[in-house]
Amino acid sequence: MEAGDYFGETDLLLSEHMDESLSRNNSNMRREGANGNVDGRFSAVSTDDELLDIRTGALEHWHDSDEEEIAKNLSSSSSNLMDTLDDLPPGIGQYEDFHTIDWLRDIARDRMRHRHIIKKKQEGIWEKIKSAHDAWSGWVCVLLVGVAAGLCAGIIDIGATWMSDLKEGICAEAFWLNREQCCWSVSNTDANDDYCQQWKTWSEIFGGSRSGAGSYVVTYFVYMLWAIVFAMLAALFVRVFAPYACGSGIPEIKTILSGFIIRGYLGKWTLLTKSVGMMLAVSAGLSLGKEGPFVHVASCCGNVFSYLFPKYGTNEAKKREILSAASAAGVSVAFGAPIGGVLFSLEEVSYYFPLKTLWRSFFCALAAAFVLRSINPFGNDHLVMFYVEYNEPWYIQELIPFVLIGVLGGLYGSFFIKANIAWCRYRKNSKLGNYPIIEVLVVTFVTALLSYPNQYTRLNTSELIKMLVGRCGPEDDTDLCDYKRNYSSHMLNQTSLKTMTSSTVIGDGVYKALWMLALALVFKGIITVFTFGIKIPCGLFIPSMAVGAIMGRMIGIGVEQIVVANHDNPFFENMCESKQFCRITPGLYAMVGAAAALGGVTRMTVSLVVIMFELTGGLQYIVPLMVASMTSKWVGDALGKEGIYDAHILLNGYPYLDSKEEFTHTTLASDVMRPRCARYGSAVRNDPPLSVITQDSMTVEEVDHVLKSTSHNGFPVIVSRESQYLVGFVLRRDLNLALSNALKNQDGIVYNSIVYFTNHVTENPNGPAPLKLRKIIDMAPVTITDQTPMEMVVEMFRKLGLRQTLVTHKGRLLGILTKKDVLRHIAHLENQDPESILFN
Amino acid sequence: MEAGDYFGETDLLLSEHMDESLSRNNSNMRREGANGNVDGRFSAVSTDDELLDIRTGALEHWHDSDEEEIAKNLSSSSSNLMDTLDDLPPGIGQYEDFHTIDWLRDIARDRMRHRHIIKKKQEGIWEKIKSAHDAWSGWVCVLLVGVAAGLCAGIIDIGATWMSDLKEGICAEAFWLNREQCCWSVSNTDANDDYCQQWKTWSEIFGGSRSGAGSYVVTYFVYMLWAIVFAMLAALFVRVFAPYACGSGIPEIKTILSGFIIRGYLGKWTLLTKSVGMMLAVSAGLSLGKEGPFVHVASCCGNVFSYLFPKYGTNEAKKREILSAASAAGVSVAFGAPIGGVLFSLEEVSYYFPLKTLWRSFFCALAAAFVLRSINPFGNDHLVMFYVEYNEPWYIQELIPFVLIGVLGGLYGSFFIKANIAWCRYRKNSKLGNYPIIEVLVVTFVTALLSYPNQYTRLNTSELIKMLVGRCGPEDDTDLCDYKRNYSSHMLNQTSLKTMTSSTVIGDGVYKALWMLALALVFKGIITVFTFGIKIPCGLFIPSMAVGAIMGRMIGIGVEQIVVANHDNPFFENMCESKQFCRITPGLYAMVGAAAALGGVTRMTVSLVVIMFELTGGLQYIVPLMVASMTSKWVGDALGKEGIYDAHILLNGYPYLDSKEEFTHTTLASDVMRPRCARYGSAVRNDPPLSVITQDSMTVEEVDHVLKSTSHNGFPVIVSRESQYLVGFVLRRDLNLALSNALKNQDGIVYNSIVYFTNHVTENPNGPAPLKLRKIIDMAPVTITDQTPMEMVVEMFRKLGLRQTLVTHKGRLLGILTKKDVLRHIAHLENQDPESILFN
Repeated sequence: MEAGDYFGETDLLLSEHMDESLSRNNSNMRREGANGNVDGRFSAVSTDDELLDIRTGALEHWHDSDEEEIAKNLSSSSSNLMDTLDDLPPGIGQYEDFHTIDWLRDIARDRMRHRHIIKKKQEGIWEKIKSAHDAWSGWVCVLLVGVAAGLCAGIIDIGATWMSDLKEGICAEAFWLNREQCCWSVSNTDANDDYCQQWKTWSEIFGGSRSGAGSYVVTYFVYMLWAIVFAMLAALFVRVFAPYACGSGIPEIKTILSGFIIRGYLGKWTLLTKSVGMMLAVSAGLSLGKEGPFVHVASCCGNVFSYLFPKYGTNEAKKREILSAASAAGVSVAFGAPIGGVLFSLEEVSYYFPLKTLWRSFFCALAAAFVLRSINPFGNDHLVMFYVEYNEPWYIQELIPFVLIGVLGGLYGSFFIKANIAWCRYRKNSKLGNYPIIEVLVVTFVTALLSYPNQYTRLNTSELIKMLVGRCGPEDDTDLCDYKRNYSSHMLNQTSLKTMTSSTVIGDGVYKALWMLALALVFKGIITVFTFGIKIPCGLFIPSMAVGAIMGRMIGIGVEQIVVANHDNPFFENMCESKQFCRITPGLYAMVGAAAALGGVTRMTVSLVVIMFELTGGLQYIVPLMVASMTSKWVGDALGKEGIYDAHILLNGYPYLDSKEEFTHTTLASDVMRPRCARYGSAVRNDPPLSVITQDSMTVEEVDHVLKSTSHNGFPVIVSRESQYLVGFVLRRDLNLALSNALKNQDGIVYNSIVYFTNHVTENPNGPAPLKLRKIIDMAPVTITDQTPMEMVVEMFRKLGLRQTLVTHKGRLLGILTKKDVLRHIAHLENQDPESILFN
Repeated sequence: MEAGDYFGETDLLLSEHMDESLSRNNSNMRREGANGNVDGRFSAVSTDDELLDIRTGALEHWHDSDEEEIAKNLSSSSSNLMDTLDDLPPGIGQYEDFHTIDWLRDIARDRMRHRHIIKKKQEGIWEKIKSAHDAWSGWVCVLLVGVAAGLCAGIIDIGATWMSDLKEGICAEAFWLNREQCCWSVSNTDANDDYCQQWKTWSEIFGGSRSGAGSYVVTYFVYMLWAIVFAMLAALFVRVFAPYACGSGIPEIKTILSGFIIRGYLGKWTLLTKSVGMMLAVSAGLSLGKEGPFVHVASCCGNVFSYLFPKYGTNEAKKREILSAASAAGVSVAFGAPIGGVLFSLEEVSYYFPLKTLWRSFFCALAAAFVLRSINPFGNDHLVMFYVEYNEPWYIQELIPFVLIGVLGGLYGSFFIKANIAWCRYRKNSKLGNYPIIEVLVVTFVTALLSYPNQYTRLNTSELIKMLVGRCGPEDDTDLCDYKRNYSSHMLNQTSLKTMTSSTVIGDGVYKALWMLALALVFKGIITVFTFGIKIPCGLFIPSMAVGAIMGRMIGIGVEQIVVANHDNPFFENMCESKQFCRITPGLYAMVGAAAALGGVTRMTVSLVVIMFELTGGLQYIVPLMVASMTSKWVGDALGKEGIYDAHILLNGYPYLDSKEEFTHTTLASDVMRPRCARYGSAVRNDPPLSVITQDSMTVEEVDHVLKSTSHNGFPVIVSRESQYLVGFVLRRDLNLALSNALKNQDGIVYNSIVYFTNHVTENPNGPAPLKLRKIIDMAPVTITDQTPMEMVVEMFRKLGLRQTLVTHKGRLLGILTKKDVLRHIAHLENQDPESILFN
């Protein structure tokens, strides 16, 4: 009878189960159908020999049959359950907002879905197509994401350029053209692009002249007015449509990718608002970049498109594969650096990164870069924002200034992080936080007021960087390129471009430029601290790089002049042919400086070097870049461990379990688990006793009481309160559903019914009908012993993506250890407030 | 008394422990010293309330005291144990040959060592220096490895070039110069480098002329003679000095990095033999490359240098970080592609790759590339073996031939893998395997005989690739570049290089070249199947790329001619200005073909594209490369899942748990664990019952019997045979040491003594003294329940690097599951012979 019951129950399970829970329990069940219910076997052994024989027979069969048969059995015996998967109830596999996801469970769910599809494939042509669609959906999805990210980036780039130019003037004939297009469309040959007839400055439009004091005041005023209008619009959009659209988004995306749910953070409204807000914020001339936010925009695209493919849209763990690829695409379009983007995603953003995702991320990043290149917002043939090609090699002696730049970059990075975090903390804890729009306006006012007079700060930040990393050719007549080169007309024919860009004595223009750059350095360095964190979309790649590039260029010019002055010194001999011809490229120093400052702020490593390498487009400068970014990281790490993103994660108390930082403490699982010392009965530190459910002795009412009196996400199931041996783990959600479903639909189930989590039900003819719920418990919860070192526990949480683990001692349940407990424990050990860890 | 005993025992442990075992047990103990012996607490609860009070008090203190104090307590209370770490017994942490390493244990051991050093840092300046040395040793080690790898590569490159040229002739004045250096050193301006006075062919030396039938025969004969001599020397070296030096080494390195010990595989003899053997093998003109073996050579360097730093030399898990970096350096010097090398290491070779290793690998790869560049074996300024810069863009229509090339590459890859594996299996199972040297000689004879007459196969394979991927400029007068370009003298002044390299109608030379290339393609494609696997060092990057490059170039020329012939067809309009001026680069097709064939054979993805991208040095060709390698991988995967390296791993039965392939079956842990169905008493499939040790009821003799009668590496410790609740896990090695040590040195311990693995010892005044061994057991073994799906078990083995896990059911021990069981199970499910998995 027991044996008959067993097979009967399997069918019962199938029909009952479908509207309750899928998750791992389901796959457990299916496996039982295939391989024998091991648990049933065990509990039956003492009571019913018939079952034992049947089960043992099945096992014999399993071992004797050849492999093909096994495979056939496996797939056929699970077929009836498979069919129920087609019409899943909505909401299965979903998590509440601000909850941690369970990677293991989600991945198992996806594998089951996959097996289901493979199985159904034989059933006809339509199923074959569906299977093919499923197999390809990952590629199609990342392709769509890449294309969308490229399109968004192109639109934002074009819009931002147009609006930036709008601050200074407008195209008379066609207002929708930006300055470059306006002048270019009129006459292709107009070499002097400082002046072009079609482009009207605001003072001209208001009836004034293009130059003169009056014109300056008008232009200054209009510039500030536009800046404030743009910033206000950006702040209002963020405030009204999508509060999540502010900031760079990278700390939050890191948190999300580490397995956390923030609903709406990657939604379509955030996407729209962030895109428009970014254009406005950049156009306002604030000291911020659009590169970090590009990652957010691309991730939004990833999230939105993942819903087109149920494989990804309904599975949070799988969705993160798409999001990893999307963040690679974000960096790819931000810098035109697809390989750098993939490495950025791998190194900085992603958490759970199976290697096959690498290839897909690369594809996504490349698609995005390709689309952006076709849109060609920068008007050159290169993918890259500030593509430079230097003619000169670098010399081994130059490593000394490069190391110096690295040190300065690291110092700046630490200063920036400390100052910015202090300011953000102040904002958080003071009344300032209540007036985000006013703060934006004040910052914009100050920025516009101070940046207009200085030509280097008035420029768009990315154009400033472009200018700084460039080399000075004969065609450049800017202050920065005021070198005293004297070519005779005779020489001009002979000398190559190489000679014309060589280093020599500087003129007055460069001195002036150096002063202005120094002012710009101080201004940018300080205003960025106050800008990063205001409630509009803002990234800090570009401002950090600008600070570094200014610093690098200044040092580069200094080194250049030292070398030129001492060109016959044996130490510099190989760098100079004559006083007129030294081979120092201050632009390279600016590039190295940009890498150093960015490295100091973000603590990126390989991805930084690869991004910069893709920007310069030559392997030969990889050593200087590497030296500077290594130095910068070491100096920065010595002064403060976290990069800016991790610092913001900590500040905001996101539940992020850093996979890079090693857990070095010597605590044990028993020190961290809840409740502390449960076995003594007396709870230390007012921990409530562990809420558990027994396998076969609690009534529906009792279980319901446990559910109502606690807010845990799940409950361990134990043999009995006396023995406390662990049976499994049941999720609150599943238990809730099962109970209410049984009370409503199942005959004979009343509040007095005993709930059984075993197969071994003792029927009581007088009492109410028992409620069998074995199918909803997870029979394979991850357990550890109380003596497990926390370093191993942390490793398991990170690598397996656990949500919780159960702590046992000699088989007895002692307590539970959730991701939040681990995070709190780490915060506690690192002298931070454990209560700062938010959410569940 | 119990309480006093507790603290007393801690000290006892400290002194006893040092000569027995370190490992995780040690760190457990130390933690107990700091935070309270939780286990002691539990076992005491029913017998001694005093202890409870003390422990609870201590816990209160722990929670009340502020964080600084906690940190102080933590470090001070563990200090006395720390001191014992200085004089570790030799051999601790070592593994037997052909055993699997336990990552968790090794990593824990390293963290403990690290904490020890941090702790001692305060003790004086010498300790500070030691600590700094320790902190830097990783970087110093990879720097040394990088430099060594670069040097080895440089020496091998130079040696191989010289010996290759030796086959054709010798430098009259200075025999140590290779042909290029010989001709170059005499006269810098000698444009016609086909003929140079100083370079004597063998027929000249033997008194003949440089041309003519007699000369051809003599040269042919000497060529073959040298080839056979070189090959024989290589085979003898491998046979006599280091049998491990044969093959490419990558399958074995993958296995080693996945956590397996093969002693001597990365030793200094292997390094030497492989380096010399590689020069000889390449010089013999065999169809093999030195790129794969470079990875092996670099890994040998990594292994050798890691012994200079005890942190890495004595810890197998940490050593693998250095080996990962070294394999990146290997690829970096092989192709001059540092980023590609790092990605290759990440994607293909490495297993356990913490992200901080990424940065160090990059550093190592860059150092190696930099050293190699300084040696400059290729005589050009580029790092890269076949650096090319194409002037022409590619057109979107060209994606069609690129996809075609990808398909062909994938087909070739599958053919190659299947044929090569079949041949290697035949070699393994037939008598052929007993005559490795004769096999080498036969293959060399056939290769030399058939390759001399064809100029394309006579060339060094890497020079052939260089020629095929190059573009045809006006200075090239080879057959392959016989284009009917007619420039008037008037034009020659005006036309740029761009015009001169444009595509146009081909001449007879190209037709001839195409025939020869077709023959070369067939020859290379077939001979490589027989070459890869003979007992000399041989890689297959270069031969695969050569096959692909020949194929690509041929298709490229075909496409070019189609476009030229239809230059006014609207489909090709944008590619041609006139019949004389089409923009197709057959060299690019060759490059794409090389990527496709290599991708088909190795199934590399991102790293392949990045390596090829670094070879071409331009981001713009990344899309064609990506398209071809993607197609090639898909086609290849559709025809057979494994790449050549994985296929060889399978063929040789290495215990490699693939981290890329998903485990898709539905079996449970209970189906795989040993013994099967232990709980029924009757063992299915003749499994011996599980060897266990009870915590407090076995005598020394009984334990000794268990040790002697089994060969397991470790034994679970349980409460009693009746209850079977799991207490911990003890390693055979530790138990052996502890028993023999106690019998020898400890008073009162005889064969009748009861062995206690608990703190709760019942002293029997009449019986022999008890042996307390609690300290040697691992109280935190990883356990799973019998219901755990195997997909999760496999995930845990992969990600946590487990060696074994214990299987429980409701807290009771059921069985054990080792890595070998998992591998056998996978082999079983995939219709392979489970007994083919070698080693432990």
